[in-house]
Amino acid sequence: MVTQQTGQAGPVRAPGRPRSERAERSIIDATIDLLAEGTSVAELSIEAVAARAGVGKTTIYRRWSNKEDLVVDALATLKPPLPEPLGRSAREDIVRHLGAMLQETHDRRLRCIMTVALNESDRFPHLAERFHEIAVKPRRDLLRSIIQRGVDTGEFRAGVDVEVAMAALSGAMLFFSKWRGSGEELPDDLAERITGQVLEGLYA
Amino acid sequence: MVTQQTGQAGPVRAPGRPRSERAERSIIDATIDLLAEGTSVAELSIEAVAARAGVGKTTIYRRWSNKEDLVVDALATLKPPLPEPLGRSAREDIVRHLGAMLQETHDRRLRCIMTVALNESDRFPHLAERFHEIAVKPRRDLLRSIIQRGVDTGEFRAGVDVEVAMAALSGAMLFFSKWRGSGEELPDDLAERITGQVLEGLYA
Repeated sequence: MVTQQTGQAGPVRAPGRPRSERAERSIIDATIDLLAEGTSVAELSIEAVAARAGVGKTTIYRRWSNKEDLVVDALATLKPPLPEPLGRSAREDIVRHLGAMLQETHDRRLRCIMTVALNESDRFPHLAERFHEIAVKPRRDLLRSIIQRGVDTGEFRAGVDVEVAMAALSGAMLFFSKWRGSGEELPDDLAERITGQVLEGLYA
Repeated sequence: MVTQQTGQAGPVRAPGRPRSERAERSIIDATIDLLAEGTSVAELSIEAVAARAGVGKTTIYRRWSNKEDLVVDALATLKPPLPEPLGRSAREDIVRHLGAMLQETHDRRLRCIMTVALNESDRFPHLAERFHEIAVKPRRDLLRSIIQRGVDTGEFRAGVDVEVAMAALSGAMLFFSKWRGSGEELPDDLAERITGQVLEGLYA
């Protein structure tokens, strides 16, 4: 059911022995924990990650030359795979896509880290760029292709502005998740409601 | 043409003599300059504002008890008033509303300060709350009322999900402005395109 990968970056840079994999996992977990507790990327130190993970700093530097790369890999492990389109109707696949976005807002740690990554995009342009590659672009591309397929099959009208339709669908979800208090959960039927409204339009 | 106020907060706390008004304006301008140059709210100091404005710290503290209030007032002076609905068609008023949002993305200083305010909303909840009151809520309320009027007059269908339609319209604009590089300007016809697509829907 969920098979498509969100990006090519996995947490593992080079295949290692089990012990080294365990260390890597501890380092990634420690990074996620620190960021989810509100540590900014600017404040995050390799020392703190090492202490939390119970490894030496050299173990970290052997795999990641800088903390931005470490944060990118930590982020990549948190992003769930995108739901693969079923291809029965564009409407159904859009609901599934927005539903997956909605699920992500329920994951407190993912929400914290995405906030951190977005907030510091000016200071860490490399991080912002990788975040875009891993988390933003694959979602956009998939949603765009679902809408385009709807146009191609005649489910949607020929004149659809695909880029703007994608922005309206994603943007509506972004709008609701952005302005809510971070603790408040969004209604379960939000993906259905957004899809229905944007597909049907407002005109009488 | 533009008359509706975006909030009750003006930059002036108490009517003063011309000299005091000039000092107040210098303090506000200095605050805006520092934030627009990339100083975070956390980093912003009353000392730096005083030095930039050419006034003493006590002149600032006489009007603002803390820097969050100062940032709120600085923000309030930058937000242009919302365009008043013309009431001829909901479509026209929605285009005007989104057009005003688009204009704001062209204002580099406003963009910088809104980014700062949003980025630090966790650390400065009072600032985030005032930002919401001044900049977010009046826009939402106005857009919601325009859509509702369209339903009431029969221009839009009775089943419109007003809240979601508002989110789709605002969210689409947010989507485009958020993921662009901060230097890149959005196309002039974006407000028309978003309005057209969201009002017409996708169905054939």
